[in-house]
Amino acid sequence: MAKLRWGMVGGGEGSQIGSAHRLGARIDGLFDFCAGALDHRPQQGRDYGQHLGLTEDRAYGSWQEMLEGERGRDDAIDLVTVATPNATHYAITKAFLDAGFHVLCEKPMTMTVEEARDIVKTSRETKRICAVNYGYTGYSLVRHMRAMVERGEVGKVRLVQAEFAHGHHADAEDADNPRVRWRYDPAQAGVSAQFADCGIHALHMVCFVTGQNVTSLSADCVSCIPSRVLEDDAMVNFRMDGGAVGRLWTSSIAIGRQHGLTIKVFGETGGLSWAQEQPNQLFYMPLNQRLQIIERGEAGLSPQADRTSRVTIGHAEGMPLAFANIYTDLAEAIMARKEGRPIDPAADLCPRAEDGLHSMEAIFAVAESGKHEGKWIELA
Amino acid sequence: MAKLRWGMVGGGEGSQIGSAHRLGARIDGLFDFCAGALDHRPQQGRDYGQHLGLTEDRAYGSWQEMLEGERGRDDAIDLVTVATPNATHYAITKAFLDAGFHVLCEKPMTMTVEEARDIVKTSRETKRICAVNYGYTGYSLVRHMRAMVERGEVGKVRLVQAEFAHGHHADAEDADNPRVRWRYDPAQAGVSAQFADCGIHALHMVCFVTGQNVTSLSADCVSCIPSRVLEDDAMVNFRMDGGAVGRLWTSSIAIGRQHGLTIKVFGETGGLSWAQEQPNQLFYMPLNQRLQIIERGEAGLSPQADRTSRVTIGHAEGMPLAFANIYTDLAEAIMARKEGRPIDPAADLCPRAEDGLHSMEAIFAVAESGKHEGKWIELA
Amino acid sequence: MAKLRWGMVGGGEGSQIGSAHRLGARIDGLFDFCAGALDHRPQQGRDYGQHLGLTEDRAYGSWQEMLEGERGRDDAIDLVTVATPNATHYAITKAFLDAGFHVLCEKPMTMTVEEARDIVKTSRETKRICAVNYGYTGYSLVRHMRAMVERGEVGKVRLVQAEFAHGHHADAEDADNPRVRWRYDPAQAGVSAQFADCGIHALHMVCFVTGQNVTSLSADCVSCIPSRVLEDDAMVNFRMDGGAVGRLWTSSIAIGRQHGLTIKVFGETGGLSWAQEQPNQLFYMPLNQRLQIIERGEAGLSPQADRTSRVTIGHAEGMPLAFANIYTDLAEAIMARKEGRPIDPAADLCPRAEDGLHSMEAIFAVAESGKHEGKWIELA
Amino acid sequence: MAKLRWGMVGGGEGSQIGSAHRLGARIDGLFDFCAGALDHRPQQGRDYGQHLGLTEDRAYGSWQEMLEGERGRDDAIDLVTVATPNATHYAITKAFLDAGFHVLCEKPMTMTVEEARDIVKTSRETKRICAVNYGYTGYSLVRHMRAMVERGEVGKVRLVQAEFAHGHHADAEDADNPRVRWRYDPAQAGVSAQFADCGIHALHMVCFVTGQNVTSLSADCVSCIPSRVLEDDAMVNFRMDGGAVGRLWTSSIAIGRQHGLTIKVFGETGGLSWAQEQPNQLFYMPLNQRLQIIERGEAGLSPQADRTSRVTIGHAEGMPLAFANIYTDLAEAIMARKEGRPIDPAADLCPRAEDGLHSMEAIFAVAESGKHEGKWIELA
Repeated sequence: MAKLRWGMVGGGEGSQIGSAHRLGARIDGLFDFCAGALDHRPQQGRDYGQHLGLTEDRAYGSWQEMLEGERGRDDAIDLVTVATPNATHYAITKAFLDAGFHVLCEKPMTMTVEEARDIVKTSRETKRICAVNYGYTGYSLVRHMRAMVERGEVGKVRLVQAEFAHGHHADAEDADNPRVRWRYDPAQAGVSAQFADCGIHALHMVCFVTGQNVTSLSADCVSCIPSRVLEDDAMVNFRMDGGAVGRLWTSSIAIGRQHGLTIKVFGETGGLSWAQEQPNQLFYMPLNQRLQIIERGEAGLSPQADRTSRVTIGHAEGMPLAFANIYTDLAEAIMARKEGRPIDPAADLCPRAEDGLHSMEAIFAVAESGKHEGKWIELA
Repeated sequence: MAKLRWGMVGGGEGSQIGSAHRLGARIDGLFDFCAGALDHRPQQGRDYGQHLGLTEDRAYGSWQEMLEGERGRDDAIDLVTVATPNATHYAITKAFLDAGFHVLCEKPMTMTVEEARDIVKTSRETKRICAVNYGYTGYSLVRHMRAMVERGEVGKVRLVQAEFAHGHHADAEDADNPRVRWRYDPAQAGVSAQFADCGIHALHMVCFVTGQNVTSLSADCVSCIPSRVLEDDAMVNFRMDGGAVGRLWTSSIAIGRQHGLTIKVFGETGGLSWAQEQPNQLFYMPLNQRLQIIERGEAGLSPQADRTSRVTIGHAEGMPLAFANIYTDLAEAIMARKEGRPIDPAADLCPRAEDGLHSMEAIFAVAESGKHEGKWIELA
Repeated sequence: MAKLRWGMVGGGEGSQIGSAHRLGARIDGLFDFCAGALDHRPQQGRDYGQHLGLTEDRAYGSWQEMLEGERGRDDAIDLVTVATPNATHYAITKAFLDAGFHVLCEKPMTMTVEEARDIVKTSRETKRICAVNYGYTGYSLVRHMRAMVERGEVGKVRLVQAEFAHGHHADAEDADNPRVRWRYDPAQAGVSAQFADCGIHALHMVCFVTGQNVTSLSADCVSCIPSRVLEDDAMVNFRMDGGAVGRLWTSSIAIGRQHGLTIKVFGETGGLSWAQEQPNQLFYMPLNQRLQIIERGEAGLSPQADRTSRVTIGHAEGMPLAFANIYTDLAEAIMARKEGRPIDPAADLCPRAEDGLHSMEAIFAVAESGKHEGKWIELA
Repeated sequence: MAKLRWGMVGGGEGSQIGSAHRLGARIDGLFDFCAGALDHRPQQGRDYGQHLGLTEDRAYGSWQEMLEGERGRDDAIDLVTVATPNATHYAITKAFLDAGFHVLCEKPMTMTVEEARDIVKTSRETKRICAVNYGYTGYSLVRHMRAMVERGEVGKVRLVQAEFAHGHHADAEDADNPRVRWRYDPAQAGVSAQFADCGIHALHMVCFVTGQNVTSLSADCVSCIPSRVLEDDAMVNFRMDGGAVGRLWTSSIAIGRQHGLTIKVFGETGGLSWAQEQPNQLFYMPLNQRLQIIERGEAGLSPQADRTSRVTIGHAEGMPLAFANIYTDLAEAIMARKEGRPIDPAADLCPRAEDGLHSMEAIFAVAESGKHEGKWIELA
């Protein structure tokens, strides 16, 4: 197993997402962590990179420095992860794509629809992969859910109900805490808070599982904590290009819920239900039969599920392995290119720039609809 | 314990709701079943009444006959339950109220808002009780949930999320079955199907638990089975007069769900969650603490909960006892009047004509909003 | 529906089991409560009987008085429930059987194996029904579990695992409370505390569901609160006459468990699992297939389940209805005799004196084994 | 972060436990996989080692070759994992300890008590770590459970109830399959099958969580599939040196259960409950309060829990991370020795040779008790 070389922009000391990426990239041993510009403060970035085992020459002080340094090398990185503040995703991602690198960008991919369109265009022109980190779609049973829908095991999808509703920003006393406040401030967060932060994970999962895209939507956005300009709770109704109707609820004030990402798919001949907090079971009811429990790792699942399942049935698998599956997808995509062979179709499921663009369109539509009493907005 | 005399219109042989009412009325032994006009076919009604133990003279052939027969008696019934087809609720309920009887009417109370207003007016003028059978509010822990909100144990309510989404009408093959079809036919069902049938239970529960009324709403109504004129799935967003925001999802095509009535309340200092299918537990999370499980029957609950709990903690209680609590509420209300004393405040929770009216307003608003792309509608 | 006449010994004011019996007997409207000797204090018994609606002449001061009073009447009671302290069950039950009455006796039926044998003999000689109140077997899905085993849907039963383990006597501070203390005092409770109180419910359910009897057992009995002479926790291993192996755990110090009655059956071709606290679902896994959830009230269950299910699928049913099923079984058994016809086999499931005897044999065997380091004891 | 060098004996191509170890060792990036003798067939072992990235000189053909090769190197491995068939654990582990290597041995550590004693002795004399892979104790909330017991949050432990009961060997048709059969054959498996395979995980967890050891036990061992010589189901009662009573059920014929490892601890002032299949929640009930749910990753847990938790609250973590925690414990233990400093006490939780010995004593006691009708056996 030849290893790929991997680098990272952002994700410095104390960053949760940074260590989650390093964990995800390491789990299957397919990537070597070779280069990084981990902090916007050059010296801290260099120090922390070396602390993590980077060689001195590849522990960079800035992403521009890293771009220059890697561009010239024979042993340049094969993939760069961009885990910087949202406002910088666009410039960094574009620059690395233009320089010929594959990129895994944190979500949201950009701050505007125009930027997102430009990333899609750049990715196509440069023929470089631009993946977006909707990590929850890496769960084995989410992959299987998609396979079941694709195989027609629930029939034509009529309705999808998704939630990403938690209670971690419910404390009004804590609302002025800078760690929380910026998220609800348009100057820093853009046009949407809770939908842009969590809702798009649920929305992407709906698209991923059904294989459909959103064509129009209507949103009811509210700020339950009155000092907030942006929404901390939103209900989004939508329609999809394959005929499905959608309902999506996202909240950060739902006290008593810890994470709250769930998805339910109702088709003409069956229903499916899955929750991130109990990810090793998928609930399935074929029409006029009984509810049955599909277990991760059971015999006879789809190749998509088998490929992303690591330990035997009955053992819990969790989020870090879902995350790792995004990296294994990318490893397969990159290796297939290197080896000039087609990608394993069961691995060709990693969210791409087009998905990032679709999310941006949805975010802006939600914000606009939310400002106009739930007016229905067509997506491009 | 003096018993009250009870009669019934509708609920004849084979009627599920009829036997559910007789069961509910019997459970606490507070009512004697004395009179009935159980079928629109006179002889069937008389026969079935006698089969159920009514004396020959009080097993009536029609509700008009019953009204005349009971009106003149010294031992006339104290309460009549109206469990006939929806379109007849108004005339029968009004006639019995006018004749001086207390009435428990099945939901929906009427077919129009105007009729509902007239029932409210009639009930007030005649000083007779007109109760409406939102039986799910009879559950002990639903009563406790209301008490907790009232006591301020979750703070000001910010958001309520309710569902009544099941999958029992999901089979397109079965859609032409007359038992199912009439529900989606405007000629028989009125302006709304699934919302009027199930959604208003959830909506009433939201009002019951929060002590607030709906002031405006926006609905997305869809017919997932295309041959249906009326909706089989609806999402309703709303605002309440105490400031709460609401989200209510109702469906009859959600394969894999059996009943699906749930309610979640999110306040400034706590969250609550309850489901009809697991009614003996109430999930409570005080802000910044842990999720805890309140058990029906535990020591130290509210008088409202204690009064409606019959067996010791750990034993399951179910729907028939919730139903019975509506009857015990009514028994207390009638006895208090007979005895010229105030009603026990912990028993004064039975839904009334005003609640039936509020539901009718909501049904028409949902239907109108649903026809106009989710336009927000003010309730009167 | 002709009603039967019903009387009660014990179950006076403040008695939980007394009101549970009245509730159970009332639910289906098959019994009229006509006679009672509700308290060992004559005047209290008479007063409370009249308060509950008995006529003055049938609100008796003692069970002997009641026996004499009812014996001579044309409208004598059809069934008497014995809900007195355990030590008096034998004498009262025997006297009523001898006088020609059918009896429903609370558990444990007697204090000794010899007394239990005598009750079986008396019941047979007098041809009177002596039922024993193992009320948990009245649950619809417990009936269905038995039917599935009988039909061979899990194959030959290999192993049964049952629990009745709760935490309500775990507080050492509360152990001297007279309400709790007597239960662990051999002078009052006999040879066993927790097994005789709760364990035998689980053991009877094992026998009921498998259709097998216990042939030998070994018990590990411990007093987790040292001041107790009798056990507050016991583990019982056993063998059954149909070849099944059994494991039964009962406890009263298992803090965090509210009720804790569960049963799991493992056969050659399937497994079943049911819990009293979630009684409307039965978990079933056919060998090499998936776990599926059987819902109370679903189409196509057994006649035994259908007969004992009252409300539609998805609605919770609870303990009082299970209890009521014992009474409906008895009503059918008594009516069938009156009408000289065979009993409906789906109703012929009420626990009898033989079951009461089997429990007594088990209690004494557990106590003996517990005293001799888990020595295996043969049951007669 | 200096990396440690790691090697492996056994765990060749197709081995599940082999890839689980490599995954666990890789997750935190603390070990480099440098050497291996992965197969008892020399060439296959060398090929697969190189396939996994080992250099040619360290992809050994046998463990003896590896021992010789590593012994002489400056960059010798710091830790060797022994994941070979059970009968070879003793010789390999002893040889590596004697040669000065730290060892992580798969369970069971040896085949006899005598061998286990010798490993303990060897480990002490050589001052090398001999860890045993009871990987389930690596779960963050299992660590926290132990910390809560240690801190006295449930008071003196009265009773522990543990299970490891699954249904994966329930198919009689499959019993002759060589993959299954050897497990129940004394010639290959030793004196015990299901208890030695799964039961000791549960038993070790009981010891780990309570901080107590087993002093005596009584076992009921049965072969539900008659062709099996060794047990496929066992119930073990035991006593512990801190006064706790224990109950442990293990089975491989419990159809409907996937994994089935659970542990419940009942103390004087509280109860705890945890299940491997839902590992991110720990159920806690303080005496006379409500059941509450402790979430992995919540604020304010113990250092033992914090150290072993990687992603934020609400995200599922699973078995591979538990496994990884065993490796991080070992990394800390080895680094502390290298650096001449005390080990972080929160990391000093890895099971050791003494635990392996205790398991062997329990296995032999269970087998002996099982042969003698549950006779109580004292452990040394």
